[in-house]
Amino acid sequence: MTTPSPSLAELRVDTDPTWSAAVVGVIGGLGPAATALFLQLVVDLTPATNDQEHLDLIVLDHSTTPDRTAAILDPSHPDPTPSLTRDAQRLEALGAAFISVPCNTAHHFFAEVEAAVSIPLVSIVDETAKAAQRRAAETSDADHAPRVAVLATDGTRSAGVYQGALEALGCEVLLPSTAQQELVMSVIYDGVKAGGPVDVTGLLAVVDALTEEGADVVVMGCTELSVVYAEQRWRSRPELVDSVESLAIATIRQAGRTPKL
Amino acid sequence: MTTPSPSLAELRVDTDPTWSAAVVGVIGGLGPAATALFLQLVVDLTPATNDQEHLDLIVLDHSTTPDRTAAILDPSHPDPTPSLTRDAQRLEALGAAFISVPCNTAHHFFAEVEAAVSIPLVSIVDETAKAAQRRAAETSDADHAPRVAVLATDGTRSAGVYQGALEALGCEVLLPSTAQQELVMSVIYDGVKAGGPVDVTGLLAVVDALTEEGADVVVMGCTELSVVYAEQRWRSRPELVDSVESLAIATIRQAGRTPKL
Repeated sequence: MTTPSPSLAELRVDTDPTWSAAVVGVIGGLGPAATALFLQLVVDLTPATNDQEHLDLIVLDHSTTPDRTAAILDPSHPDPTPSLTRDAQRLEALGAAFISVPCNTAHHFFAEVEAAVSIPLVSIVDETAKAAQRRAAETSDADHAPRVAVLATDGTRSAGVYQGALEALGCEVLLPSTAQQELVMSVIYDGVKAGGPVDVTGLLAVVDALTEEGADVVVMGCTELSVVYAEQRWRSRPELVDSVESLAIATIRQAGRTPKL
Repeated sequence: MTTPSPSLAELRVDTDPTWSAAVVGVIGGLGPAATALFLQLVVDLTPATNDQEHLDLIVLDHSTTPDRTAAILDPSHPDPTPSLTRDAQRLEALGAAFISVPCNTAHHFFAEVEAAVSIPLVSIVDETAKAAQRRAAETSDADHAPRVAVLATDGTRSAGVYQGALEALGCEVLLPSTAQQELVMSVIYDGVKAGGPVDVTGLLAVVDALTEEGADVVVMGCTELSVVYAEQRWRSRPELVDSVESLAIATIRQAGRTPKL
């Protein structure tokens, strides 16, 4: 015998005692490898001695969301905003306490998505910018404003997503040259998103060139670059600040826990 | 201005054209590291050249679900069945086409969860048992029934979850000795679930002992062992069959796609 389907109220996890108090909503699939990495980092960085001490999350792993960079660069491309907005409303209706979106380029659509719900969104860009500012202060002389280089998609760069967040924090922003930017885009689209080979040596050469130009810190400002950062175990490199790691840390804090670091 | 909250019908993803036709429902968090690994393997094994060619999934990453082994071994422990059933109903109400549960021990509660919804569940245990039978046929002489050893939790073992599935396929089942089983449980609970050190050498010694006793194949029949299998890159070992990998392959097939292998 089938139990009756739940009502809208019964779908909510925040009134279900088997779920924890602060359930994390995630709009994922932007891209899908980055979402798997985000969940892995949340597990790695949450202090827990058994399953039940970990966070509860609802993940809308929506890989078919229209491409964010394509929409920013070409107005004739499908707009991801309605899809992002509807998914945020789904997470709110299901009882998520707040929403994390492991995608830097999607930040361009952040204000519109935020306006569609009454639960907070954790901003990957603001959290990463703050982490970059802190790291620059720790690792460089205080005789200049923090200099932060950003590796990101053409869409994130063109929309000025990181430039705005970093300049608001008093940082000076460095961007890759045209040739360097092409290499970064190839790592993101031909490498991680398409499952092709990743030019790790080329990517490191871009990092080195930017630090030689004076960057105190280089931000992995695209979640596909975070996948490379994790695979290459670059957490030990003090000049790199990663966006998915910064979002995982902020997500654990927003859920009321203290991340392991 | 806030857009009105969606109705129950509007929450469904199967009537939302921005979602793909066959959305995968996942009851996750059992444990949480295994869910992150499952999503990673689905990404790795799906043929795709961009984000939009990947699967769409809804993941209820419900780490606080009561412990499955504890409930099987001790009737006074909280029963995970109501939580698993309600989550399955949530996924059905959201429009998932079918449900995958990356947890072997949860299979003990499979029939009751399956009865509560009208969408199919993909069984990690049945899929892993079939993969083990095929592998044994490929790698051993045909002069005996396939001999399959199973590494699993005390709960999975005590409930006879794998024994039933493998014997139904004509396989002979080998189980670890008491001392070996203690080491396996320590890897699962003290190592992966608690984030402690993992005795990889000890685990491999158990595998070697079971193959010396005549096992054609050794099944990683607990998703926490799958985490070790992935970290140690044991896919190259022909005597091992992994449960999360088997579930990822079956999930991609059930979604109408052909997995890369």
